[in-house]
Amino acid sequence: MSLSAIAKPILYSYWRSSCSWRVRIALNLKEIPYDIKPISLIKSGGEQHCNEYREVNPMEQVPALQIDGHTLIESVAIMHYLEETRPQRPLLPQDVHKRAKVREIVEIICSGIQPLQNLIVLIHVGEEKKKEWAQHWITRGFRAVEKALSTSAGKYCVGDEISMADCCLVPQVFNARRFHVDLRPYPIILRIDRELEANPAFRAAHPSNQPDCPPELPNK
Amino acid sequence: MSLSAIAKPILYSYWRSSCSWRVRIALNLKEIPYDIKPISLIKSGGEQHCNEYREVNPMEQVPALQIDGHTLIESVAIMHYLEETRPQRPLLPQDVHKRAKVREIVEIICSGIQPLQNLIVLIHVGEEKKKEWAQHWITRGFRAVEKALSTSAGKYCVGDEISMADCCLVPQVFNARRFHVDLRPYPIILRIDRELEANPAFRAAHPSNQPDCPPELPNK
Repeated sequence: MSLSAIAKPILYSYWRSSCSWRVRIALNLKEIPYDIKPISLIKSGGEQHCNEYREVNPMEQVPALQIDGHTLIESVAIMHYLEETRPQRPLLPQDVHKRAKVREIVEIICSGIQPLQNLIVLIHVGEEKKKEWAQHWITRGFRAVEKALSTSAGKYCVGDEISMADCCLVPQVFNARRFHVDLRPYPIILRIDRELEANPAFRAAHPSNQPDCPPELPNK
Repeated sequence: MSLSAIAKPILYSYWRSSCSWRVRIALNLKEIPYDIKPISLIKSGGEQHCNEYREVNPMEQVPALQIDGHTLIESVAIMHYLEETRPQRPLLPQDVHKRAKVREIVEIICSGIQPLQNLIVLIHVGEEKKKEWAQHWITRGFRAVEKALSTSAGKYCVGDEISMADCCLVPQVFNARRFHVDLRPYPIILRIDRELEANPAFRAAHPSNQPDCPPELPNK
């Protein structure tokens, strides 16, 4: 095994980035030790735009994961890689229809909600309209997530085992709260979020427990 | 086997929807016969918003696929389901790092580009700004896709076998042309798009070959 393969993985992460957070949860659930290299999305106009980091991730966003001698980007692709190389503590169910349901919820959040309310898009939307814009897309997506959960959820998003869907849901609920979305119409989402709050893998991945989290947390 | 399992799959599709198009390509590549049920995103303010279709897909968008007695939504989840239940003509490579690369390109397009330039978002952005908005996000994403392809591409996006990444790339190139994006900075994207143009599975899935394509095609 090469040196790079046995080196500890490095996660380029920002404390409040929901996409970084998904991967932190997955790494924690699978008990894969890793180091964090913080990339501030705020400092100096965003460290993700500097030339050095652009070589790591040409999308100029977090996360990126250096693992097994490779640099991986895009959070859902990274979670699938971890699943395929570290099958312990699976993030996908065995049953093919349940797997489809997990991926459906993942995609509603990761393609249907988060991209429309992430920092770079909100800068483009403008300060005046950004809250309403974010609320609109989160509300639309959460209606669909709640509907999906009404037939799939057990203790967690799909049945009683934690999956990739849960890794994506919890950070999205945090974002919804940041934008003051009324979450009362989504009782299943809220119940699952509460259920996972105390889970050690989720707790350790929380923004407030990150090395780059500022001491004065505006949105804890 | 139950009746629903042997019934021909039904794809809810719109001729110009790039997400429907991805699934049409995947079905064609795997030679799975299917019927199309057209959902017009234009007629009567959008048939995807009617009560009946909202029961099929609570995100109120296409595609949705009725297959094996289940209704699946979200194009990437559907492609994975097809891959896991119909392994003939694989859409993912065997090698785990190549699989990660395929999923990375898929996610750049399906989370990083398409959601920001789809119809429902552009309606929200407004007629005046929509072209510039779409160009901005497609250009940003294509820079990253071209960079990824510079190390992964063979004849197609990842090596010499067609994958999910190709199913996503071709419809996104079509959208880029619709919004008059200058594609000259992306020679690898253009080469792969040209390569796939003549492929029968891609040709049959093209918007101009759909039953609901209007006779007068504005953007053929």
